[in-house]
Amino acid sequence: MKHDYFIALEQKNNSQLILHDVIEQLAFNEQGLIPVVTQDANTKSVLMLAWMNKESLQQTLITKRMTYWSRSRQRFWIKGETSGHTQLLVSMAFDCDGDSILCLVEQSGAACHTQRPNCFYLKVDADSNQVIITNNTDPL
Amino acid sequence: MKHDYFIALEQKNNSQLILHDVIEQLAFNEQGLIPVVTQDANTKSVLMLAWMNKESLQQTLITKRMTYWSRSRQRFWIKGETSGHTQLLVSMAFDCDGDSILCLVEQSGAACHTQRPNCFYLKVDADSNQVIITNNTDPL
Repeated sequence: MKHDYFIALEQKNNSQLILHDVIEQLAFNEQGLIPVVTQDANTKSVLMLAWMNKESLQQTLITKRMTYWSRSRQRFWIKGETSGHTQLLVSMAFDCDGDSILCLVEQSGAACHTQRPNCFYLKVDADSNQVIITNNTDPL
Repeated sequence: MKHDYFIALEQKNNSQLILHDVIEQLAFNEQGLIPVVTQDANTKSVLMLAWMNKESLQQTLITKRMTYWSRSRQRFWIKGETSGHTQLLVSMAFDCDGDSILCLVEQSGAACHTQRPNCFYLKVDADSNQVIITNNTDPL
């Protein structure tokens, strides 16, 4: 990880950096990917976790349509390209270590391919040592 | 990825599974790790993204104190063990593919090691092609 770069930023409140320079320093993994947390800008619900490579990150910034890298299909994945359930980028932030991205989005329809509002529908009930498969309209 | 297991769950609304069985099917990566999104249960702010292995996941469920695996230090990382900024687990959910975890927590103090409320303080301004280093009290 290019960690020293981000350590040097910690005390620089309100400084401005060139976006391209920061993207070059992000900690893409051995497959060239970085995890992206996608959050609904209105409800604040965490919709999904997916991955981007540098090119899909740049495409997302240019088009404002969330564009991931599909690890299972090994290709670009413009969210909603088949379902119509698109995600419009509202804002993006990188974390302190430069190894993850948070995107707030306007979600059209269901974020999950199962038609549930978000992907985190397998709820742990630690007291009973069970997992409940929810329809995801329940609060977490 | 043990994807077939999770595909088989998609239509089983309100079913209950044995927690141990689901954990055994989670898609831990080659390093035995799975990404964890940690969200403030009160504010709904996404605080950080970190990683767990199977043992730290089990410790988190038993102790209710968020316990990650530190990739930089290669050891268990009980959040707040030195800073006092602990995270009490409120609820946990797995996603549709079994390859990420969402935890809602009660956060004590700052989630970020820089003393900012959360780790996502490097805000992208796509219009100006800049990144702003915020003190993180600003909305995203």
